[in-house]
Amino acid sequence: MSELPNCETLLLERDGGVLHVTLNRPDSRNAMSLAMVRELRAVLTAVRDDESVRALVLRGAGGHFCAGGDIKDMAGARARGIDAYRELNRAFGSLLEEAQRAPLALVAVLEGAVLGGGFGLACVSDIAIAHAEARFGLPETTLGILPAQIAPFVAKRIGLTQARRLALTAARFDGTEALRLGLVHYCEADADAVEGRLAQVLEQIRQCAPRANAATKALLLATENEPLGPLLDSAAEQFAKAVTGEEGAEGTQAFVQKRKPKWAE
Amino acid sequence: MSELPNCETLLLERDGGVLHVTLNRPDSRNAMSLAMVRELRAVLTAVRDDESVRALVLRGAGGHFCAGGDIKDMAGARARGIDAYRELNRAFGSLLEEAQRAPLALVAVLEGAVLGGGFGLACVSDIAIAHAEARFGLPETTLGILPAQIAPFVAKRIGLTQARRLALTAARFDGTEALRLGLVHYCEADADAVEGRLAQVLEQIRQCAPRANAATKALLLATENEPLGPLLDSAAEQFAKAVTGEEGAEGTQAFVQKRKPKWAE
Amino acid sequence: MSELPNCETLLLERDGGVLHVTLNRPDSRNAMSLAMVRELRAVLTAVRDDESVRALVLRGAGGHFCAGGDIKDMAGARARGIDAYRELNRAFGSLLEEAQRAPLALVAVLEGAVLGGGFGLACVSDIAIAHAEARFGLPETTLGILPAQIAPFVAKRIGLTQARRLALTAARFDGTEALRLGLVHYCEADADAVEGRLAQVLEQIRQCAPRANAATKALLLATENEPLGPLLDSAAEQFAKAVTGEEGAEGTQAFVQKRKPKWAE
Repeated sequence: MSELPNCETLLLERDGGVLHVTLNRPDSRNAMSLAMVRELRAVLTAVRDDESVRALVLRGAGGHFCAGGDIKDMAGARARGIDAYRELNRAFGSLLEEAQRAPLALVAVLEGAVLGGGFGLACVSDIAIAHAEARFGLPETTLGILPAQIAPFVAKRIGLTQARRLALTAARFDGTEALRLGLVHYCEADADAVEGRLAQVLEQIRQCAPRANAATKALLLATENEPLGPLLDSAAEQFAKAVTGEEGAEGTQAFVQKRKPKWAE
Repeated sequence: MSELPNCETLLLERDGGVLHVTLNRPDSRNAMSLAMVRELRAVLTAVRDDESVRALVLRGAGGHFCAGGDIKDMAGARARGIDAYRELNRAFGSLLEEAQRAPLALVAVLEGAVLGGGFGLACVSDIAIAHAEARFGLPETTLGILPAQIAPFVAKRIGLTQARRLALTAARFDGTEALRLGLVHYCEADADAVEGRLAQVLEQIRQCAPRANAATKALLLATENEPLGPLLDSAAEQFAKAVTGEEGAEGTQAFVQKRKPKWAE
Repeated sequence: MSELPNCETLLLERDGGVLHVTLNRPDSRNAMSLAMVRELRAVLTAVRDDESVRALVLRGAGGHFCAGGDIKDMAGARARGIDAYRELNRAFGSLLEEAQRAPLALVAVLEGAVLGGGFGLACVSDIAIAHAEARFGLPETTLGILPAQIAPFVAKRIGLTQARRLALTAARFDGTEALRLGLVHYCEADADAVEGRLAQVLEQIRQCAPRANAATKALLLATENEPLGPLLDSAAEQFAKAVTGEEGAEGTQAFVQKRKPKWAE
């Protein structure tokens, strides 16, 4: 694969087709610093064209996922004026856009604090697994600021109806409620169950052809913007290419021969 | 009503204002063949301008709804090249578009396999009733292919958040989970309960004026594409026509006279 | 604050930053008359630029929220012809648009009948609290008419999948089901619990900075129409203004000083 960047704020570990990325600033509950934003974006760039990475697991060190924006960066921006704030904020939105589009399965493991920016990251995952005692919330307006880059991703994730309540009340809630709201796909009672669920999800992803998964994810995201007719035309084109291509040939032959396709061996 | 087409792959049965359509290829778990796509489209064309058909009940023979695309058709397309695949795939998408727009209440009864193309059909129903033991899933990418025509309808049905997990993991799930995801409206424990629920839903639909229901369905679908202001202008126009038209006069008189309107007798 | 209009159909009561608005035509289960539409719109205009009103609580007198459109107005429109119906209907849609955009937290307390137009009003609230025995439904098509202005707001509120079933079957349902469908945020077992929940929600809103909440609500609503990239650019701009503005300075200082910001005192 492409070389991974050297990171100060992240732990990276490769295991077969899975890249484990751990936010690693436990002293600040993995608060999202500008350095962390840059490093996450560099990791996403490195894996973008690397088909050997089929899943990226994102989690936090020290029992928390991410408690939101970093207060020291905020202070630094204050010294540099309003433009610095704008750029700081927009850079995080670019991270969310890039994570959303990553052509692999993005799996989030959500424990402890999942607040503000951490909440935003959870919203761009393809599969989210929460610990029942995780703490979710959008505290921004209690500080006189806005969940600015996060709000659109929250609205897409759980719908406008729930997003407006959460953003206008800053209500905190746990993993069980996150499951009920459709923010996460699984809620597990303890750390062992979280790991068991993660293993199961990664095994399911391994059964799926990598390029087919990447194309399907792009197609699903496109439904947000493109009119239905042209989208279906383009999807039919992609279907024909996939079925006559390498993965389609392997997958259908493996099915007939009652064996696993090579990507699932 | 307009004459119904002769069908080899479907059983058609008319009962008052209800047309029962049964996918009838039980040997292949009602796999969606090109012939079946053509016949379903012909049925939808036949009922499109026929106000006497107020509900269409879609189900499968032999304990399954529909297990997905037909493998023999796939093989046939392979012989004819990439264009044949594209057309085969797009034709199914056209079926989904036409079923979605059908100006009647489309009720799906979901038992056994509801996979791939069968899953897509479930997603365009107005009311979906699942057997608790039905098996839902999008297995396409495990075969190296894409849920191409289906993906946009799945995303609209259950939202992007759940659609991405299901498509990228090919996870199977049952009727209880389908209810939780909002894919279906009812989950029933056994065949009798399924029939009881179907009867109740059809009775509810019979209380609703046919043209008013058709106009309301079109209005709801239009919310996906049209900006709110012009949509509300057009809706007010339609409201004024409905209330001063035949159904509006009958419905409001019946209400005042404490009798059933004629469409509900 | 701006002076509130004199109202015949509404009770208005100010309590600190909260304006309590009670639909007050209990003899007709608070049916939405043209006068009531006009008075609600006047109230919304009065509070629009008044930052001292941070929450508006909307409820009904006499144990019902709102049973739908007023039959006498309908009769009056009939005498004046099709244009009168169109205007009557569209005016209610304008009320829904204006209530949706109100730059404060709109809290709906839903008891008894929440039908037709009342259902529409529920759909534009930011936080909805239902009594478990409230009765929700869209009965329009049983009368031969359309939920014309309401349908788009229902589809946005609970998604197309549930909206089409409710509109095409006119099914009635209670507060528990309203919670399951995501129509409301809370369902409470009795009147005391409803009041307790309302107090809790209003206290949460009081912790949130007024302008930050108004800007966040506008941003969330904009996600329905604006493409993501430009929206994030604009959000970053707003973030920078908020953090360097009065509320941002007060909120972050209060946080550092471990005291309540002045808006939450």
